[in-house]
Amino acid sequence: MKLDVLVVAAHPDDAEISVGGTMLLLARAQKKVGVVDLTRGELGTRGSASDRTRETEAANRILGLAVRHNLELKDGRVEVTLEARERLAAIVREHEPEVLLAHHVDDLHPDHRAAGEIARSAWYLSGLARLADPSATKPARRPKRLYHFMGHVPFEPTFVVDIGEVFEEKRELVRCYATQLAPSGPEDKGQHFLFGADILARMETKARAYGERIGVRFGEPLLHKGPLPWLDPLLAGAPRGG
Amino acid sequence: MKLDVLVVAAHPDDAEISVGGTMLLLARAQKKVGVVDLTRGELGTRGSASDRTRETEAANRILGLAVRHNLELKDGRVEVTLEARERLAAIVREHEPEVLLAHHVDDLHPDHRAAGEIARSAWYLSGLARLADPSATKPARRPKRLYHFMGHVPFEPTFVVDIGEVFEEKRELVRCYATQLAPSGPEDKGQHFLFGADILARMETKARAYGERIGVRFGEPLLHKGPLPWLDPLLAGAPRGG
Amino acid sequence: MKLDVLVVAAHPDDAEISVGGTMLLLARAQKKVGVVDLTRGELGTRGSASDRTRETEAANRILGLAVRHNLELKDGRVEVTLEARERLAAIVREHEPEVLLAHHVDDLHPDHRAAGEIARSAWYLSGLARLADPSATKPARRPKRLYHFMGHVPFEPTFVVDIGEVFEEKRELVRCYATQLAPSGPEDKGQHFLFGADILARMETKARAYGERIGVRFGEPLLHKGPLPWLDPLLAGAPRGG
Amino acid sequence: MKLDVLVVAAHPDDAEISVGGTMLLLARAQKKVGVVDLTRGELGTRGSASDRTRETEAANRILGLAVRHNLELKDGRVEVTLEARERLAAIVREHEPEVLLAHHVDDLHPDHRAAGEIARSAWYLSGLARLADPSATKPARRPKRLYHFMGHVPFEPTFVVDIGEVFEEKRELVRCYATQLAPSGPEDKGQHFLFGADILARMETKARAYGERIGVRFGEPLLHKGPLPWLDPLLAGAPRGG
Amino acid sequence: MKLDVLVVAAHPDDAEISVGGTMLLLARAQKKVGVVDLTRGELGTRGSASDRTRETEAANRILGLAVRHNLELKDGRVEVTLEARERLAAIVREHEPEVLLAHHVDDLHPDHRAAGEIARSAWYLSGLARLADPSATKPARRPKRLYHFMGHVPFEPTFVVDIGEVFEEKRELVRCYATQLAPSGPEDKGQHFLFGADILARMETKARAYGERIGVRFGEPLLHKGPLPWLDPLLAGAPRGG
Amino acid sequence: MKLDVLVVAAHPDDAEISVGGTMLLLARAQKKVGVVDLTRGELGTRGSASDRTRETEAANRILGLAVRHNLELKDGRVEVTLEARERLAAIVREHEPEVLLAHHVDDLHPDHRAAGEIARSAWYLSGLARLADPSATKPARRPKRLYHFMGHVPFEPTFVVDIGEVFEEKRELVRCYATQLAPSGPEDKGQHFLFGADILARMETKARAYGERIGVRFGEPLLHKGPLPWLDPLLAGAPRGG
Repeated sequence: MKLDVLVVAAHPDDAEISVGGTMLLLARAQKKVGVVDLTRGELGTRGSASDRTRETEAANRILGLAVRHNLELKDGRVEVTLEARERLAAIVREHEPEVLLAHHVDDLHPDHRAAGEIARSAWYLSGLARLADPSATKPARRPKRLYHFMGHVPFEPTFVVDIGEVFEEKRELVRCYATQLAPSGPEDKGQHFLFGADILARMETKARAYGERIGVRFGEPLLHKGPLPWLDPLLAGAPRGG
Repeated sequence: MKLDVLVVAAHPDDAEISVGGTMLLLARAQKKVGVVDLTRGELGTRGSASDRTRETEAANRILGLAVRHNLELKDGRVEVTLEARERLAAIVREHEPEVLLAHHVDDLHPDHRAAGEIARSAWYLSGLARLADPSATKPARRPKRLYHFMGHVPFEPTFVVDIGEVFEEKRELVRCYATQLAPSGPEDKGQHFLFGADILARMETKARAYGERIGVRFGEPLLHKGPLPWLDPLLAGAPRGG
Repeated sequence: MKLDVLVVAAHPDDAEISVGGTMLLLARAQKKVGVVDLTRGELGTRGSASDRTRETEAANRILGLAVRHNLELKDGRVEVTLEARERLAAIVREHEPEVLLAHHVDDLHPDHRAAGEIARSAWYLSGLARLADPSATKPARRPKRLYHFMGHVPFEPTFVVDIGEVFEEKRELVRCYATQLAPSGPEDKGQHFLFGADILARMETKARAYGERIGVRFGEPLLHKGPLPWLDPLLAGAPRGG
Repeated sequence: MKLDVLVVAAHPDDAEISVGGTMLLLARAQKKVGVVDLTRGELGTRGSASDRTRETEAANRILGLAVRHNLELKDGRVEVTLEARERLAAIVREHEPEVLLAHHVDDLHPDHRAAGEIARSAWYLSGLARLADPSATKPARRPKRLYHFMGHVPFEPTFVVDIGEVFEEKRELVRCYATQLAPSGPEDKGQHFLFGADILARMETKARAYGERIGVRFGEPLLHKGPLPWLDPLLAGAPRGG
Repeated sequence: MKLDVLVVAAHPDDAEISVGGTMLLLARAQKKVGVVDLTRGELGTRGSASDRTRETEAANRILGLAVRHNLELKDGRVEVTLEARERLAAIVREHEPEVLLAHHVDDLHPDHRAAGEIARSAWYLSGLARLADPSATKPARRPKRLYHFMGHVPFEPTFVVDIGEVFEEKRELVRCYATQLAPSGPEDKGQHFLFGADILARMETKARAYGERIGVRFGEPLLHKGPLPWLDPLLAGAPRGG
Repeated sequence: MKLDVLVVAAHPDDAEISVGGTMLLLARAQKKVGVVDLTRGELGTRGSASDRTRETEAANRILGLAVRHNLELKDGRVEVTLEARERLAAIVREHEPEVLLAHHVDDLHPDHRAAGEIARSAWYLSGLARLADPSATKPARRPKRLYHFMGHVPFEPTFVVDIGEVFEEKRELVRCYATQLAPSGPEDKGQHFLFGADILARMETKARAYGERIGVRFGEPLLHKGPLPWLDPLLAGAPRGG
């Protein structure tokens, strides 16, 4: 199925927390959006595997996703292997997205760093014809853009997506992952969270902080490496990049 | 007169050489474009003041400029004075452009550095109501964007404007400044040019080098500091920044 | 009067908005804190000069400041002059602070940039004996540290001050500047604010965003250029820098 | 055994040369310090394996180390494997240090780069509960800080530890590795040293150069990525970070 | 065979496109130059393996290479393995070059990134005596310099080699790789090229753009990390670094 | 008088401390070297104006300088004025040096920053014909290189000059400035020195630290902005830049 946008994330809920607002806006604009999760997030301290499957399905319904894949790599052990990047490249070719969204290659979580590198390599490799599986149904084709989303390590974004009109909906979306948002028992103080266990509050802080950078209430930051065609709609009529 | 875009340049011909293609494209798209030159370029080794006035007028005709101002600062002696930045801020308020284009604040030519700083300060000050001249006819109003164009010192651009369809016209535009393109006499070896006297050839090399960065034949690089609203037309329908 | 900390800010309310929490914490710890405002903030769209004086006095009472000076430079026209930096250096020598807090040298507001540069030069010059006014009562003496606080342009901070226990008090402090927080009339849409007129909300967003970086609820970011002696209290007993 | 500080180094003598002074100071302050060497340093041109074991033991006695582990990875062939980082994470959990000290992730020696990456990942993974070996006796727990020490490639340090009072002792400590400090035979010109064979002289130069940055005679540079809680003892009484 | 310069490239034609002019100049200066290609470039969309072998041989004749090795790693699947870097280190020791030229460690093509890392590690490891194969005929010896050449991602070069006098010859050299320069069939639109299929035109643009940086017509950019001995021939007589 | 190298420094003794070794080497190589000091250094805590004149003359004799100018700007009050940069540009034109050596534009001492900026602008302006004083005896001509030397703020140098063979002579040279090296009285504890009063010891530490970066005993660091022609003597015979 031809997609407009494909999101590549290390763990279920990473896509929703990082670019859930952007995905909701794309859905409203009738864009076809897919997600590839690299792992099942089975290291998460809280919730069973079946809890997580159920949660992801609930999120998918809100997002109206066209497709969601899972590479079933091992949580906490994501590595930049040839196999991982070629499997992802094959999915990219299959769905022909115009735009990839993926983790930044620098982050505190090693899985996020690896996911960013896998996506960066798969983006390039998706355009090499002879690397494709001979049985592939689609030819080599490289998405026009690769944007990185933000994890624990801040960067100066190229763009901030104004998610004001879907912010409440994004909150609902993240709440689908209920097991991640509540203590699993009396001894659970959210120790494995670097910056505190209150995921919803931190998500809101980040949305406000980056929204402010473009003068709106809530935003999601994205990074593009290298120059883009001039896209500024203030100058509509000027040639736009493909 | 309300403008869409105002270009701020140190010397006549700087605007044409740096963003002539962008200005031509804006004109084709029926945008109103103005230019503020800070000096008359009277230090140029070649050509008299009246030569230069005639040349600038020829360029203006090709560009179809709505307005062209000259602050008459001294060539080779541009400084970031309160007066210079407030005069420029007044012009910005008068014309209410959505977008400013100006030199980068780092360059080898001290006038270019100063012009970049004057523009950056004037951009900010144009939004301060009480700084305005009481006799001003327009209220304080800050353009939505400030983009920097490139001089001698390269930077990694945010955008490259595809100027392929107007490149030949840009060449004609720069040829208007004929006294700058030819030796003034037998002893003139273009000594005062840092990188050689063949302005047209260097302009073309730069256009090709930055065009290649976005996969087109000719381009002009622009820098935006800080994040922009998400503008990607690949995702039309997603909210666009004002 | 000997101070522990001297804060240098461009406009009244800059010190409070940027490092008000830090100043409140220092006051609770019985530290002597002073402020030097460079201007009266007379360009502010809202409120008269006497409004502002009254507001600053209210803020001073909450802060328990030991001293507050005003250089009476012109708002919107702060420049890095010899006189400005030497007057500030004289104040630094007079009060002998251990620590200076000042604007960063990069910011969107030209007054903030200039204030950061004035402070950086005054910090250095305060240690040059022969530069001192012969009538000065105190010898040359350079504060041990110069920290920069954040304006419009983000930077990666060296430290974040945990201001959780004084955050509500900081809110009160900023509310002293009531004329800055309310529209001055029906046509006042906060146009001269870059990122929106709701100063209190933006202050809270910033406090939450930087607090999160060190795992606390509210924080104020500070930048130190160059290495510091090893200060980590996790390793108390290890030698501390002067 | 609960430690205060755990040092992670690629080869025996790397810890001593890079942060020997810091370790000696910590010992004087009654802190418990441990070391994990990743290899036996068996590629060193000079000295046998038993020479090296004897040398390390002598260094341990001077340092008064609580514990010293060796992962027995292959010298010159250290790689960032899942196994390496999980073994190190298990050691971190076992000893519960507050602070990790490790190589920087950029260096000329590939083993140093790999050791820095292994330590950075292990630091993060030590906080993930389900990644822990079920037989582990200690729960998941992430050290509060990770500082990087310097190898061949300079960086701008966050802190410099003043090691003036233990510098002579550090010299003795490094002299424990006598086989590394003397030619192994007539053909040994120290070829495998990038910057010359005189390790003691280079160690002193570095100590002097970084000491000067904070105004003391001898120092050891450390890098912290991302902001720290405000630790400045000049402002004791202000809240300190955990 | 003792070499002056060894070039390390991912695919046949990478060396020619990136530093072909430099190699031609070295040949004219009677320097001995060798090349190590890491792969056979078998993923290239166009041309068979035997086509490529024939093309490389033609290029070798023009270059007058002393030696050309191929590690036969898999195209599109180059990884930074211990084996790859030690095989390269052995070749470096065997040929004792003074200077290595290799890909930059950052690039869009994952093979280029890996090739740059392999070369950086091999450069260091070539100086470690005990890592050498016991059967090696040459002792450990590290080249004095490692320069990186440029792929898709621009960097600010340390040096630009003036290739004006051999530029036409470089063009011939690249034309040896004829299968890479022509469509392989009607459906071949150069899709797998990031920036367009016209390799010769892009090579010329890059040569002009970097040549301009030093005031010459055609140049090739090189990066050296870390300081060099002072080499400026304007000051001949001043000591030169080895 | 035609010079090979012109050194631009803020205070007498800055040139000697920063690039004294380089100047001595140039003298040995029969190069003609000149110095422009911007001030008399009259703010120095120690020594009278006549002391300083005598000291500078002694240093000149050791250096065998062809010429030494003094712009007599005010110490502690150096500003980047049009007059300062044009006076320096006139001196540059008069002496036609191939190479300028000047302070870096970033430093803790404001005079050093200003001196670096004045030199950078004067370097550019020296090539503009019409800016020259009509009475000038020499035409516009820009030196081929501008290198920056290091003050208080470290940078990653492009080159390190090996000054091993003249290091003892450099020590003698700096000792000429005896009043700067000794306390002026009992209350003089070197307070105005940022990093301690022992100038000779700090000079040696810096020489050792940067020498080590290129594998020699003593070195002086220099920075060149932007690419240079390829100068590597390892590859003599390859074309050299002008």
